[in-house]
Amino acid sequence: MTAIIKPDTIIQKVSIIGSGNVAGHLGQAFLRSGLEVVEICSPNQEHARVLADDLHAGVARSAGDMRTDADLYLLAVPDARVGTAASGLPMVEGIVVHTSGNTPLDVLERFPRHGVFYPLQTFTRGRAADLSSVPFCLEASDREVLEALAELASRLTSEVHFITSAQRKILHLSAVLVNNFSNHLYHLAEEFLKENQLDFGMLRPLISETAGKVLDLSPEEAQTGPASRGDAGTISTHLEMLHDHPDILELYKLMSEQISKQNHE
Amino acid sequence: MTAIIKPDTIIQKVSIIGSGNVAGHLGQAFLRSGLEVVEICSPNQEHARVLADDLHAGVARSAGDMRTDADLYLLAVPDARVGTAASGLPMVEGIVVHTSGNTPLDVLERFPRHGVFYPLQTFTRGRAADLSSVPFCLEASDREVLEALAELASRLTSEVHFITSAQRKILHLSAVLVNNFSNHLYHLAEEFLKENQLDFGMLRPLISETAGKVLDLSPEEAQTGPASRGDAGTISTHLEMLHDHPDILELYKLMSEQISKQNHE
Repeated sequence: MTAIIKPDTIIQKVSIIGSGNVAGHLGQAFLRSGLEVVEICSPNQEHARVLADDLHAGVARSAGDMRTDADLYLLAVPDARVGTAASGLPMVEGIVVHTSGNTPLDVLERFPRHGVFYPLQTFTRGRAADLSSVPFCLEASDREVLEALAELASRLTSEVHFITSAQRKILHLSAVLVNNFSNHLYHLAEEFLKENQLDFGMLRPLISETAGKVLDLSPEEAQTGPASRGDAGTISTHLEMLHDHPDILELYKLMSEQISKQNHE
Repeated sequence: MTAIIKPDTIIQKVSIIGSGNVAGHLGQAFLRSGLEVVEICSPNQEHARVLADDLHAGVARSAGDMRTDADLYLLAVPDARVGTAASGLPMVEGIVVHTSGNTPLDVLERFPRHGVFYPLQTFTRGRAADLSSVPFCLEASDREVLEALAELASRLTSEVHFITSAQRKILHLSAVLVNNFSNHLYHLAEEFLKENQLDFGMLRPLISETAGKVLDLSPEEAQTGPASRGDAGTISTHLEMLHDHPDILELYKLMSEQISKQNHE
């Protein structure tokens, strides 16, 4: 975080390309911060209209039809569609940014002022997002644009980070590990419990505490369990219990081997 | 949860075998609930003394030397040591319970009144544990013992569950998935970030939100990310980035295959 004093550009009018969770949550946060959302543009016209109503914004029929007077064009579309969505935009003087973890800055280089505005968080429709401690990872075509983005981000969060495209990819991959893959483990547990007439709700305090622990401790210090204490008896009981669950079995073996190896390095 | 009116036995005096995290956290919770901790017995004499001081309790030199007038003998030792620890106890009239997820009730059957008192939570030294919503999984030799344990548990938590040994094993295995294995993913991410001069702290809001989401949503609804949306481009970029990280690579492949399969079932 660099102290932001007075960038030459203050972003006030934002247009959003996309109508999914990132578009919705950032749009709401912009509105709360006193910005104006000018227009929404999305291939899903129905979603675009609903979001535009929420954000008191207009709807553009296509990217080519968008108003060209916004200070910021925020491309909040799936990673695979960033390039295409950008190529559909008219040439604008405003800053054009994408919100993707895995897409380099230079896909936007045909715009004179471009950047990346990547919130390191997962967003869910209908679930309020507190952005105030979410890291925003910024990158830009030049110093002036970077300062403008940093000033904007600092209205949403206390965690403003200047991150290169290469670093952002590393963060994004790490996010897949801790978010998507942990959630997959939750899902496997839910199914396993359900088959045995047990309620996933019983695991919720444990899930909270597992995540809560690493707010204070490093994951290495926080590790417990059969693999970490070398309890071969429990591991072998578990493997037997998973005889009819090849997916969980395979993950269990691999995870336990890795944890055990790490504990004996 | 069954409404507990007036069990015939009210547990008031507890002796604890073990001096680790479970012993410490439950001992503290007993004390806060107005129980008396009579004695601590542990092969680690130094730990036993520290814990006994904390809990205003005495120290027994060995299990065979323990006072026989406690209402409850709580075996809070590693799973693999429950049987041995139990066999060292004198024959007592009080209730003898273990706190293990993976150990059947019947290892305690030489005691006329025995049971299981299993908190479905992870405990860390030096980290305060709020037990009030932690599920306590109870099982007992007979109805009177079960009622006494339920009355005791209800002083610690609002979540009292009567759970068979077979169900408890299922819960324990599920706990390994969501706790130890999620924590292993956090650990892998921490190392990967560190190698790239990035701070694990940046992932903390995401880790909290990932766990927070499944307090409201099912993990199936909460899933996002490249594998879940079939984004082959991002997956293949990630696999390339993991060329020098065989452990993460192998987990990444397996997890992504499973998530992708589940999304197309």
